[in-house]
Amino acid sequence: MFKEISTDQAFMLIEPGNLVLLTTRDNAKNNLMPISWIMPMDFCAKFALVTGRWNYSCIALEKTRQCVLAIPPSSIIKKAVSAGNISGDEVEDKFKECGFTPLQAGDVCAPLVAECIANIECKVIEHIKRHDIFILSGIRAWINPKLRKAKRIHAVGNGTFIEDGKTINLKNFMIKRPNVKDI
Amino acid sequence: MFKEISTDQAFMLIEPGNLVLLTTRDNAKNNLMPISWIMPMDFCAKFALVTGRWNYSCIALEKTRQCVLAIPPSSIIKKAVSAGNISGDEVEDKFKECGFTPLQAGDVCAPLVAECIANIECKVIEHIKRHDIFILSGIRAWINPKLRKAKRIHAVGNGTFIEDGKTINLKNFMIKRPNVKDI
Repeated sequence: MFKEISTDQAFMLIEPGNLVLLTTRDNAKNNLMPISWIMPMDFCAKFALVTGRWNYSCIALEKTRQCVLAIPPSSIIKKAVSAGNISGDEVEDKFKECGFTPLQAGDVCAPLVAECIANIECKVIEHIKRHDIFILSGIRAWINPKLRKAKRIHAVGNGTFIEDGKTINLKNFMIKRPNVKDI
Repeated sequence: MFKEISTDQAFMLIEPGNLVLLTTRDNAKNNLMPISWIMPMDFCAKFALVTGRWNYSCIALEKTRQCVLAIPPSSIIKKAVSAGNISGDEVEDKFKECGFTPLQAGDVCAPLVAECIANIECKVIEHIKRHDIFILSGIRAWINPKLRKAKRIHAVGNGTFIEDGKTINLKNFMIKRPNVKDI
């Protein structure tokens, strides 16, 4: 179902600023939360995200230093947002509670999310505690070819979301850009 | 033309992951560059962005510790992208070169961008050099009421861009969200 892609393409899963589901696994318990405070830091798979101990996921991230960044299509926006309505410490199985299917990842303990467009397996390379910033390195990336063109969602922050609209191609106009293969 | 809004609303100008124009002013020379490696860090106006000395703007940011984050509407996407095609050190007036109008900001030396939906005046509160991360505090925020609903743009990273599509309202469904006034 998921096809592996180069981690050099993974920044394009984050750069448009779409909503991400962050998955972790600790004490044999899977967890996931929606996150939009995340950004690429390079054209290779290096990312920064902000989360603190007010989120249950933060503790697993600190402890295991592994996670998955999963990209939900807009068709499952309610499921994705529901993951922000409850905390992982309130339920036994948050994936089940929110209607998600965990899949075994290749190299990290955190699960992939079957319903998502793509998944990036990451390791924590640094935790800048004073700012609640985690610096992540993407080590493997996976895409569901059937969802390659699916619309993604962007959180506004006030309880509304914006779905992807039309694509504008400026490849020939943008002269300083990385030579990267389309996803 | 621009109306001041609360800095507590400013995170909603960044959270959807739209393209931002970063303006600086150094030695009486205005500069601007497009940036999408940026994220909110809080519901107040605290942001992180990644840029390094390979960008001319970085030097002004290090020196003056002030900048403006301006949000371009998709109607001026070519102008916004053109600012990434040339470096500020190659031209005398990059605003003029790219067709932008600088406006005097309230509390920072960097200019607002007249053609943008909104502008956030920021001060650098920390520069984490080993990761090229600047931590910014938004001190004043401005919106053009006529462009309040304008579509924004999202960089994919491969020379294509995605325009905002439809808005999805989940205010009643999203139970854990900040109580923030719409922009």
